[in-house]
Amino acid sequence: MILPCKNQWLLFGGIGLLSIFGFITLQKSRNIAKKEKIQQEKFSQDLLQSQEEERTRIARELHDSVGQQLTLIKKRAQNIADDPIAKMTNNALEEVRSISRDLYPALLKQLGLKDSIEQLINEYDEQTNLFFSMDIDEIDVYFTENTSLNFYRLVQECLTNIVKHASAKFVTITIKKEHKNIVTLIADNGKGFDVNDKRKKNTLGLKTIFERIKIMNGKLSIDSTLNIGTSFIFSIPIKK
Amino acid sequence: MILPCKNQWLLFGGIGLLSIFGFITLQKSRNIAKKEKIQQEKFSQDLLQSQEEERTRIARELHDSVGQQLTLIKKRAQNIADDPIAKMTNNALEEVRSISRDLYPALLKQLGLKDSIEQLINEYDEQTNLFFSMDIDEIDVYFTENTSLNFYRLVQECLTNIVKHASAKFVTITIKKEHKNIVTLIADNGKGFDVNDKRKKNTLGLKTIFERIKIMNGKLSIDSTLNIGTSFIFSIPIKK
Repeated sequence: MILPCKNQWLLFGGIGLLSIFGFITLQKSRNIAKKEKIQQEKFSQDLLQSQEEERTRIARELHDSVGQQLTLIKKRAQNIADDPIAKMTNNALEEVRSISRDLYPALLKQLGLKDSIEQLINEYDEQTNLFFSMDIDEIDVYFTENTSLNFYRLVQECLTNIVKHASAKFVTITIKKEHKNIVTLIADNGKGFDVNDKRKKNTLGLKTIFERIKIMNGKLSIDSTLNIGTSFIFSIPIKK
Repeated sequence: MILPCKNQWLLFGGIGLLSIFGFITLQKSRNIAKKEKIQQEKFSQDLLQSQEEERTRIARELHDSVGQQLTLIKKRAQNIADDPIAKMTNNALEEVRSISRDLYPALLKQLGLKDSIEQLINEYDEQTNLFFSMDIDEIDVYFTENTSLNFYRLVQECLTNIVKHASAKFVTITIKKEHKNIVTLIADNGKGFDVNDKRKKNTLGLKTIFERIKIMNGKLSIDSTLNIGTSFIFSIPIKK
């Protein structure tokens, strides 16, 4: 079909307008989807935060109320020299402490971040067949109370992942201050995984790691080779 | 500028191709953003789920270990007739029970969903200045253990939101089976809010409500008028 030139220009203009309109609609839809994704991300981060608050609150309640009462019972049992009660009270206190410890790393406040992480790694070392080695800089001054807890959880989540899934024998943890970043390397010699496997990437553990790093504006790179091992390297920017 | 007709066709074709290419790129980018949003949503839901599991686990640990020890101490204290220890042990037990109750509505298993929700509402009625009225169908058979807990939390989250933010005097809760849905209305006569205000919509409480409804494939509509009140209506599809 051959049209006169004027009609062709009309057609051309019409299609041009349509394209522009299509572009704008699509662009809007993309922006909405992106915005919704960001909101959803914010929600996940708020959820993680509120979960930490709940944990801290329960740990404090346990310590302040139940722990306090148990300490009084223990004293009274010692006073009246009743061994069975003293022993049972000790057991209960141990339980309360162990539950609290899982909920909030109480040592974080007492010992600080570096020592708490070392303590955490030592616990894993004792409780599992894995062999851990570590080299951790003095990093405490670079973190607030909130980011300390987040960073601690991040390391904990990585280690739990390794213990659960990696079938590794050795784990190396180094945490270093490099220029304006805290750079962490957590490497194991386990079975590795396909880092491009989306199902793997979307497990709760890995997503939580990603999200915690995002909360601190950090960057993560994962390097994994099947039957050789996996390295997590994350870099968290600091102000000082 | 007037081009010969053949050149116009070339130009037209070129722009057409470019438009198609642009469309596809944009469409892809939109689809990626949408997919990422869905993954992020899945992550939030997994987080909510894992938080419930953690709560249940802690409640069980508290009950099984600390609670058990305390019961033994209480018995021993009664045997040796030591009032102070019996009293302190009672206090500690009360504390443990109260913490557990917050973590996992133990009654859910014993009483079932309907009675647990009624119990929850009665507790709010006692603890606040609000006046609650309720009309709840026999809904227990329509929910599994998991969805029961989720539904319970949903109602709880709505009520907490009202108590915290609505400045209301009356709250009405009706939960009805209608055809293949469980339809819930939670209405207050409080100060209301602008349902189109995105900041309000993105608070942790409201987002959690949305997410819990999504987990159950339900639908939510919110109707709010300033100084008149707010109604939440959610409809959860059931199989029976």
